[in-house]
Amino acid sequence: MEPKQYELIVIGSGPSGEKAAVKAAYFGHKVALVEQAPMFGGAEVVTGTLPSKTLKETALFLSGKQEKGLFSIERDLSRKASIEDFMYRKNLIMNSEATSIGVNLQRHGIDVYQGTASFEDLHTINVSAPANCSLIADFILIATGSYPYHPSNIPFDGVRVHDSDTILQIKHFPKSLCVVGAGVIGCEYATIFSTAGCKVLLVNDKSSILTFVDKEVTQELLTDMKENGIETFFNEKVSSIDVPTNDKEPLRIHLESKKVIEADMFLLAAGRSGNVHSLNLDKVGIPVGPREQIFVNDEFRTKVPHIFAVGDAIGFPALASTSMEQGRIAVAYMFHTRDLEHHPLFFPYGIYTIPEISMVGLTVEEIEKKDVPFVTGKARYADMPRGKIMGAKRGFLKLVVTREDLAIRGVHIIGNIATELIHYGSHLVEDKKDLYFLISQVFNYPTFHDLYKYAAYDALSTIAGRKLKL
Amino acid sequence: MEPKQYELIVIGSGPSGEKAAVKAAYFGHKVALVEQAPMFGGAEVVTGTLPSKTLKETALFLSGKQEKGLFSIERDLSRKASIEDFMYRKNLIMNSEATSIGVNLQRHGIDVYQGTASFEDLHTINVSAPANCSLIADFILIATGSYPYHPSNIPFDGVRVHDSDTILQIKHFPKSLCVVGAGVIGCEYATIFSTAGCKVLLVNDKSSILTFVDKEVTQELLTDMKENGIETFFNEKVSSIDVPTNDKEPLRIHLESKKVIEADMFLLAAGRSGNVHSLNLDKVGIPVGPREQIFVNDEFRTKVPHIFAVGDAIGFPALASTSMEQGRIAVAYMFHTRDLEHHPLFFPYGIYTIPEISMVGLTVEEIEKKDVPFVTGKARYADMPRGKIMGAKRGFLKLVVTREDLAIRGVHIIGNIATELIHYGSHLVEDKKDLYFLISQVFNYPTFHDLYKYAAYDALSTIAGRKLKL
Repeated sequence: MEPKQYELIVIGSGPSGEKAAVKAAYFGHKVALVEQAPMFGGAEVVTGTLPSKTLKETALFLSGKQEKGLFSIERDLSRKASIEDFMYRKNLIMNSEATSIGVNLQRHGIDVYQGTASFEDLHTINVSAPANCSLIADFILIATGSYPYHPSNIPFDGVRVHDSDTILQIKHFPKSLCVVGAGVIGCEYATIFSTAGCKVLLVNDKSSILTFVDKEVTQELLTDMKENGIETFFNEKVSSIDVPTNDKEPLRIHLESKKVIEADMFLLAAGRSGNVHSLNLDKVGIPVGPREQIFVNDEFRTKVPHIFAVGDAIGFPALASTSMEQGRIAVAYMFHTRDLEHHPLFFPYGIYTIPEISMVGLTVEEIEKKDVPFVTGKARYADMPRGKIMGAKRGFLKLVVTREDLAIRGVHIIGNIATELIHYGSHLVEDKKDLYFLISQVFNYPTFHDLYKYAAYDALSTIAGRKLKL
Repeated sequence: MEPKQYELIVIGSGPSGEKAAVKAAYFGHKVALVEQAPMFGGAEVVTGTLPSKTLKETALFLSGKQEKGLFSIERDLSRKASIEDFMYRKNLIMNSEATSIGVNLQRHGIDVYQGTASFEDLHTINVSAPANCSLIADFILIATGSYPYHPSNIPFDGVRVHDSDTILQIKHFPKSLCVVGAGVIGCEYATIFSTAGCKVLLVNDKSSILTFVDKEVTQELLTDMKENGIETFFNEKVSSIDVPTNDKEPLRIHLESKKVIEADMFLLAAGRSGNVHSLNLDKVGIPVGPREQIFVNDEFRTKVPHIFAVGDAIGFPALASTSMEQGRIAVAYMFHTRDLEHHPLFFPYGIYTIPEISMVGLTVEEIEKKDVPFVTGKARYADMPRGKIMGAKRGFLKLVVTREDLAIRGVHIIGNIATELIHYGSHLVEDKKDLYFLISQVFNYPTFHDLYKYAAYDALSTIAGRKLKL
């Protein structure tokens, strides 16, 4: 059979693939999408983003953590919500999102092929069963996502020894959990399981956590982790794990330092690798990095100009939000859609730890390297009227401001709904608004957005050499 | 004793008075502040804003309403939080805020006088005991706030028959509550008490509620009210109330239509009047309106150019947030502080009902009057990934957009954290951002800010005549 012709073939239906395919179709181009799994959505829907956020809400409900500050009482220990509630809601959301992706693809007239894609030549993609066919296109977009990295010394079994995919299929909450890796995924699960009442032991091969985040923010998270009984082991690596035959006995996790950690369950959250093995990239001369990530330029082009790659397959930051944007940008470069004038220079990062972390623009560490005079301004949740109402004990918002023009260059938040609050900061950083603009703004009262104004006064106080609060 | 001389006398230490006094002092001017009550803060701290928001959080905790959607379970009926928890936290917040206002005034070198202020002549203010003195100033700012309107046919007793001040001192939650008035205060208390488990009967003399709010939003709130068992009586007025001698028997509230409502407790939330009676305004020739509000121009000047008035004393919107801004603007006109270039054209309104309502810019009703072609775009909480995780059933965000330039002119939100989410919309409206700008923005995923993007696609779909979601 003659291969069907398209202007664009998208491989993968996760956040970046879906958005890219739909945008190209919307602009009138003929698009095919290849998805290996029987369900649309990739890591966003099936294994990662949404399920883990559902688990987070479950844990918060179990603990009553957000309300403890308000009423200084502990929630009833009978625990009305359980892992079954979580599984029920997780499946509900997975099905609903996967369906809505399918409807979106169909509505835009995109041809969908189920099967594994591999390069036949520079413009031809073979799709395995069940689709079993070949497709030809002017442009190809690789949006195949990632899979958890499996080092040979870890005896993954999906029951007691987990990676970041299987951890979401557990049948009960463990009494104790050893998490290895203190990046975004490791820190999210460490705080979520700790909040759900598990004893958590966090192991990292570096001396700290979340290395791309502002240091004062990671320090605040570490303090909170410690207060909640999370035990940390820094500059440590796992050498081996003993899995006892008796389920009641703990796992014994041996570190290279000869320390031994005992825990009920184990999670390796030390990075993910690009899903590229079945693509046959050799055939088209696209090299991959040590973690199987594909290298791309600013336009998300690989070494082969008509083949693009986006999302987890290209590595950091590997967030659903940024992946969607990458997909849209790649399509803009393919088809000259002339909508890049609005392309934002700054993306927010959202980390769904408990408490949440979010940031946009420069960190203190980054601005220090630029050798530009700057000041910071900070406001604590506990000092805000709304923070007092909610009984907030921890968390702050920090502004990074250049001294010369008082422009806001970075916003860093740790605390309640940080991932929502940051968007106002995106606007400040993107539009280079200054401190005087910020203090003249009217916010509803009381809200957490007050943090912005109080942080601005704090920065102005530092510049003036005296405390003020207008 | 010779009257002490100032550049500015501020009468009242509520949100508008505090911010005005501190701003003037910060810019180097000599400021006196007169406060009648032994506690700083006015309606914000003592009687209204913060205490009612604390009650709201208590009610939400009692009901578990925000979590019901998530787990489809009812909270334990043993009710771990109670009116005592509320009173405890309310007092904590009152003291903390009042203290922090005192510290702020002191830090800026403002002289504080306790007593009741009245005009002696155009520039002289008498302060009664305990201060017992006269003060003279170039400028005078009236920030005396408001008090609940007491019609003669309502037998207020502060026990069963309340106004919006005494309702915050109740000793127990009533089984049923009749609320008269469906403005901001009436709707807030109706939904808060209903959420706390009280049967609520809402009486209004108009045919709807919250008349300045977008009609589709008020309709959504009404639907929610009905689902939660709030009974509404529109185009009805109270003629009289029978208060039985036996506390166990219900109040009998007679309406002018001859209907009779029985309820455990009664709240009149039908407006507040300006606190002007003791000011001696006749002496300086400043007239007041029917509800004792003071008329001011755009610069917040009264008929007498060096006497300004702000906050509740001038009437609508009488919100803490807008009052603070009014105070700051008045000071800018007095002392030419040259910081009005940043003066925002659009203020958000926040209504702390359950669910919350917030808006900025034009309503549909307002843009219709302007005779400019427009479209709207709407996104529902229940369709957002984050809404699904939280089990949101109700609520939406609506954009009002001018067709010619696709600029966003108004944002209307009803639902979870609406009073926070609106600030991103303030920026869109203030900076006249268009739909293409909005769809190119990157939001953390999943967040409620996604509502903005989905509403933008909905508006673009309407314009294109077909559904799309890029």
